[in-house]
Amino acid sequence: MTFDIVKVRADFPILTREVNGKPLVYLDNGASAQKPQVVIDAITQAYSHEYSNVHRGLHYLSNLATEKYEAVRGTIARFLGVSDERQIVMNSGTTEGINTVAYGWAMPRMEAGDEIILSVMEHHANIVPWHFLRERLGVKLVWVDVDANGDLDPDKVLGAITDRTRLIAVTHLSNVLGTVVDVKSICDGARERGVPVLVDGSQAAVHMPVNVEEIGCDFYAITGHKLYGPSGSGAIYIHRDRMAEMQPFMGGGDMIREVSKDAVTYNDPPMKFEAGTPGIVQMIGLGVALDYMMGLGMENIAAHERHLRDYARDRLDGLNWLNVQGRSVGKAAIFSFTLEGAAHAHDISTILDKKGVAVRAGQHCTGPLMEHLGLAATCRASFGLYNTTEEVDALVDALELCHKLLA
Amino acid sequence: MTFDIVKVRADFPILTREVNGKPLVYLDNGASAQKPQVVIDAITQAYSHEYSNVHRGLHYLSNLATEKYEAVRGTIARFLGVSDERQIVMNSGTTEGINTVAYGWAMPRMEAGDEIILSVMEHHANIVPWHFLRERLGVKLVWVDVDANGDLDPDKVLGAITDRTRLIAVTHLSNVLGTVVDVKSICDGARERGVPVLVDGSQAAVHMPVNVEEIGCDFYAITGHKLYGPSGSGAIYIHRDRMAEMQPFMGGGDMIREVSKDAVTYNDPPMKFEAGTPGIVQMIGLGVALDYMMGLGMENIAAHERHLRDYARDRLDGLNWLNVQGRSVGKAAIFSFTLEGAAHAHDISTILDKKGVAVRAGQHCTGPLMEHLGLAATCRASFGLYNTTEEVDALVDALELCHKLLA
Repeated sequence: MTFDIVKVRADFPILTREVNGKPLVYLDNGASAQKPQVVIDAITQAYSHEYSNVHRGLHYLSNLATEKYEAVRGTIARFLGVSDERQIVMNSGTTEGINTVAYGWAMPRMEAGDEIILSVMEHHANIVPWHFLRERLGVKLVWVDVDANGDLDPDKVLGAITDRTRLIAVTHLSNVLGTVVDVKSICDGARERGVPVLVDGSQAAVHMPVNVEEIGCDFYAITGHKLYGPSGSGAIYIHRDRMAEMQPFMGGGDMIREVSKDAVTYNDPPMKFEAGTPGIVQMIGLGVALDYMMGLGMENIAAHERHLRDYARDRLDGLNWLNVQGRSVGKAAIFSFTLEGAAHAHDISTILDKKGVAVRAGQHCTGPLMEHLGLAATCRASFGLYNTTEEVDALVDALELCHKLLA
Repeated sequence: MTFDIVKVRADFPILTREVNGKPLVYLDNGASAQKPQVVIDAITQAYSHEYSNVHRGLHYLSNLATEKYEAVRGTIARFLGVSDERQIVMNSGTTEGINTVAYGWAMPRMEAGDEIILSVMEHHANIVPWHFLRERLGVKLVWVDVDANGDLDPDKVLGAITDRTRLIAVTHLSNVLGTVVDVKSICDGARERGVPVLVDGSQAAVHMPVNVEEIGCDFYAITGHKLYGPSGSGAIYIHRDRMAEMQPFMGGGDMIREVSKDAVTYNDPPMKFEAGTPGIVQMIGLGVALDYMMGLGMENIAAHERHLRDYARDRLDGLNWLNVQGRSVGKAAIFSFTLEGAAHAHDISTILDKKGVAVRAGQHCTGPLMEHLGLAATCRASFGLYNTTEEVDALVDALELCHKLLA
């Protein structure tokens, strides 16, 4: 196997630490991923030796920082299978990306009664910006349920299209259920009906190869901190035709061509959508993180995580007092669960933490999905490229302790 | 003197490097400042040993990261003289801060014919968001000129108030002229007339003690990368009364209380204005940077920079072929200049760079000011806390070379 997990783990300094006297078992990757040494080193290098503001500086450090920063756009394009990097807007993450679309593309072109189709398993980042349009413009949110396994039927999504549908906004991979959505089928059908599709790739791009041109979506948002990159980094792919339709989102330096007292003209995309001094060093770090992932091979990462998923699914299925949410066959290695009885998710996670196992408890920014599932909260163990089957065992051992203490 | 410049310089690793075979003389602080080792170390420490997403996690690392992240809010409040830290919104910098005000406060309450007063020396970050209101709502931008020295008369600003004035948006310190604006007098007068004031503190907070409660402004924006902190960090003070009037800007996780299919309720301020996973590690780094500055003492930093300003002003005044823009007596150590004759600012900066002297050339994101000055571009040498009089000499030597080569 080309994927050497021992070597990979050695790349992540935090994985050698203990918490509460136990080796860290970090299963909170759905919330944010840890960073390899190469990313940390790139940040240190940038600040210690190569830092300056970017764009329009003419001195040595400014040129150097600009080159390194702008090269990341190409790295992101390659990572997402985008042939023209001018369709990549660099930003602080998925939240800013989706808000850019909501404010820059959707708000100026939607009116009362227009419809946006969402799946019930969207993350709040892909819900709240659309609630803004509901609150402010009277746009209608149309929700499509998932089935009992947590699968989303593309035909149900397409069946929800009416002549008022202006956008489909859907996750590529549920952060709670692990469901992988067939976004290509949704995009194929939507294109025939003239409906643009925004795909929230925050989770998917972490766990599997993504090619947005094959998917055929109009918008694809990613977030750096989940991709083993720095916090405050990210990007959104915007199809050039949608870009041409957009007004700017944030105003400031860099996104303009000329500013006078009476007028303003805007820079060409993607700069038009990148206002002010960007997150220079975070973005340089994100470029290194994506190179790191591509170096390991996204297929190899996906294969390793399938192996973890299968192992975890088997072991968790052996706990007959554990209810795992989401039984989609092709799901990612993300397991949300509750214990039978009244055990609160927060109590479970606290006990797991005492054993060094970091999971998240709560709604996971998915209010509508929790409502759909009839749950107040779940615990979630979400795996990343550095996790191991031994860590699955540690989770199961800790859960057995929970069951003993809380049942 | 309590301010030991040799010791201070040793805190900044990049200052020991050479560029183009010469010691780096970094005079581009107006664009972005270099980072002390304590900030770089804090970033490394966070990613290597203490990283997790923040808020609502219950495991050890999440609690640790949340504590460190949330403590920064108090540090910023202390730095700005704000007694209630709930008036501090953490963000990616001034551009996001001012856009938050434009979208969250101004847009919902302004209509065609309403007026916003701006000084002619505003940075594009404090112009373009208001041009959006002009373009989209028909709001009128009212410009107040500076005098021949580059001073802004508070009475001229107040004299521009009409019964349609809804906001005054003014810089505290010009990034081109170095002029310090008497924002307190503007705020005092504006308050009597019921007009809120936004102060762009991007430059001022770097060079002098700032107390926003003494100033009495409604909004005060700062940006971390100029404050010796990480790129992609920043904050805005928003008076609680203005906060209460604001709608959210970006939508996503963390800024909500509850999200269902049909409704959304928002978190209390300041969380209401902080959507999604924040720039966790950048903000931790910003906290360290502000502690570093406060440790040196803002009065000491200001005194050191006054000394630099006086020395630089004398030396540059000795060059009778150099036109320095901005002669305000109390100005900061920021010198924008042109050479007599046709020498292009870009050529000057390129020659300076060959001598290791990093300055910026161009419009400095101040289109209206350049129009006012009748200049296409200037070179700008902008000093920071680690600069020395020897570096002023290096600048002058390099300028003399420019004069020889280009005159």
